[in-house]
Amino acid sequence: MLKLNQTASMIDRRRFLSHLAELARFGADELGGVSRTGFSEADHAARRYLCERSRMLRLRATVDAAGNLFIGRREADRDRPVLLFGSHLDSVVHGGRLDGAYGVVAALETLARLDERDGSFAYEPVAVAFANEEGAEFGYPFFGSKAMVGPIEHAERLVDSAGLPLRDALRAAGGDIDALSSAVWPAGRLGGFLELHIEQGPVLQRAGVPLGLVEAITGRHIFEITLTGEQNHAGTTPMDDRHDALVAGARLTLAIEDIARVRRLCAVSTVGRFDVRPNVTNVIPGAVTLTVEIRDGSLDRLANAERAVLAAVAALGPGIDARVDVRMRAAPVRTDHRLSAAITDAAAEHGLPVLTMHSGAGHDAQIVAAAGPVGMIFVPSRDGISHSPREHTEPEHLLAGADVLLTTVRRLLEGADR
Amino acid sequence: MLKLNQTASMIDRRRFLSHLAELARFGADELGGVSRTGFSEADHAARRYLCERSRMLRLRATVDAAGNLFIGRREADRDRPVLLFGSHLDSVVHGGRLDGAYGVVAALETLARLDERDGSFAYEPVAVAFANEEGAEFGYPFFGSKAMVGPIEHAERLVDSAGLPLRDALRAAGGDIDALSSAVWPAGRLGGFLELHIEQGPVLQRAGVPLGLVEAITGRHIFEITLTGEQNHAGTTPMDDRHDALVAGARLTLAIEDIARVRRLCAVSTVGRFDVRPNVTNVIPGAVTLTVEIRDGSLDRLANAERAVLAAVAALGPGIDARVDVRMRAAPVRTDHRLSAAITDAAAEHGLPVLTMHSGAGHDAQIVAAAGPVGMIFVPSRDGISHSPREHTEPEHLLAGADVLLTTVRRLLEGADR
Repeated sequence: MLKLNQTASMIDRRRFLSHLAELARFGADELGGVSRTGFSEADHAARRYLCERSRMLRLRATVDAAGNLFIGRREADRDRPVLLFGSHLDSVVHGGRLDGAYGVVAALETLARLDERDGSFAYEPVAVAFANEEGAEFGYPFFGSKAMVGPIEHAERLVDSAGLPLRDALRAAGGDIDALSSAVWPAGRLGGFLELHIEQGPVLQRAGVPLGLVEAITGRHIFEITLTGEQNHAGTTPMDDRHDALVAGARLTLAIEDIARVRRLCAVSTVGRFDVRPNVTNVIPGAVTLTVEIRDGSLDRLANAERAVLAAVAALGPGIDARVDVRMRAAPVRTDHRLSAAITDAAAEHGLPVLTMHSGAGHDAQIVAAAGPVGMIFVPSRDGISHSPREHTEPEHLLAGADVLLTTVRRLLEGADR
Repeated sequence: MLKLNQTASMIDRRRFLSHLAELARFGADELGGVSRTGFSEADHAARRYLCERSRMLRLRATVDAAGNLFIGRREADRDRPVLLFGSHLDSVVHGGRLDGAYGVVAALETLARLDERDGSFAYEPVAVAFANEEGAEFGYPFFGSKAMVGPIEHAERLVDSAGLPLRDALRAAGGDIDALSSAVWPAGRLGGFLELHIEQGPVLQRAGVPLGLVEAITGRHIFEITLTGEQNHAGTTPMDDRHDALVAGARLTLAIEDIARVRRLCAVSTVGRFDVRPNVTNVIPGAVTLTVEIRDGSLDRLANAERAVLAAVAALGPGIDARVDVRMRAAPVRTDHRLSAAITDAAAEHGLPVLTMHSGAGHDAQIVAAAGPVGMIFVPSRDGISHSPREHTEPEHLLAGADVLLTTVRRLLEGADR
């Protein structure tokens, strides 16, 4: 057991865990996980449940034009900058019950513990459940947080896999596609954003540390590369006459893996998609299309790794035509020193060790960073598994993370960190 | 121009080329090629045309239970062993006009030049168009030639991609699925089989030689290999914790290519099919299923190359589970020395150089070899291209090959080769 400083703020253990269990019922799937894609019926139901729960806690729930759900105090002070904390309620298909929802429940339970200290707050505390973070439907990850920091392009055109327009799905969530610009926060309104999330990786479990302080959310470059060789008869074409696109794709895949694993030019490098044409046993492959994804917390290292990707393509030599399309270049995001210091101090108040680390996964916090300072707290994921019904975090760690969120928020509201 | 011995037998140039052009109309496709899959309407029409043509040449066409079309003399001597020559009429989808059809037209034109020499023949000459050699539909390549040498398993179950049962398609071709065993030739009936075919590879063109004498049709082993690693998040899983099935598949693909290209253990080695799961940009691939095909003219070399394939799989090491399924083990087939000598002598009679070579592609001859001696003649394929509308052989080479077939048949019928 972790040692606990009994004077520190603690969230309500029983209520927190039952709240989390209740939420897991919305979109519960046959695999024991959660399928609650953004703007689905299950997502709507989970949001209604959260609104109901907020009312019972004498809090006020509002929905912006992008479907973001904000929960604040009934007598909020609109002139103070907002200290926002939360995450998202939507999941991937066959995901777990913690990814996103954990941070939202912890935010609501934190808010519920703040109501008696009104007058002295440096910020107005607000909990948030961002809309459609995963982008499992409508093909627009971080929809809600992106709508908060700037205009959404071509929202009119977005449809889900069944053809339902986002316009209708958004209306059902209480949003309004024609008023999306009203969801953008004015400069200075955001005092800070804190996101508590499961790690979704194995680092904390392996280190045996219950809390992670996120120093940076890694940047991510994605390339789609098509290699074209010469499709031919696998029986009659001599080996020295071949321009086998699959062989070229295999060489490139190993070179890409080396960029992170051997050369350590970036944190991770992955070929995830790999499509061969014509993909027939007795035909030498004529073309391969693959995706390369590189991630790192440093912009310089990412740029260097990108040069290594392009060099690996160029090294495939004659006989193979290569076309490289950039699909995404998302810069790394640093978290805020002051918010991070408040998290570290809060953890110390609870007697909890903290590991400073990077987030390999993307989070709403990296988007919100465009509007103000952000901080992130991780708790361990068992065996690093996420986006899976097998996703799990020990209740002890869930409670520790929520306690640290509450204490961090209190310290910031009270100006105790200055 | 090739020098020609004017005393040699020659087929009717104008009639041969117009016959070939006529046949290309059946199944002519929008790409300028031929789509005449076995037992399709286009195939039926081409067969009817060939029957009509045979009648005009005062020859007799018959169809066996498997749909093989045999063309013989009206007063055939049923006691003599048969000297069979021909190929197939069906094509792949978007194939060329020569693959198969060339050998059938040459066989019919050869037969048309033999009719006055009846009495002295050592064999009864018969031309053949084997049914559904390509197996583009009904999933049973070499259907006709296989039916000639032994029982066809589960013919009842075969359907085409539109769900049409082989039973109906075979009836439309004049065959009878319930009488397939009647298509098997009794021992001793086949005196020999000669197949004239386009090379479908670049060897003859590159050597600048108009004729190939096939010494062996390569054997072919096919394996389906599934590699299972661990599917995981591409952002949060450190490089050293990964069991990436695609990386393992890439290593294996390069090792397979090396078996023929670098180590020269067999003639060719190819990974043609390669399927990745889940095949998503930001997920480390959990499984890959690929096919390995090795071909060679020697059984010992094939066995040795197979051991190298299995060693390459074993060398993938821990963290990757591998399952290897043998999909096919077809042994190499040697052509007959006597028939080959007759081909060589016939070519010499026409003043044509001959290159002794292997066939990397499969042919009806390799199946028929189970019932008697076989010989094969190749003519050059422009740029080695086949199974494509771009398939082409110069008319000069088509005529040379047909002349050599005619002269070879004459020499064998007259016993001039003994």
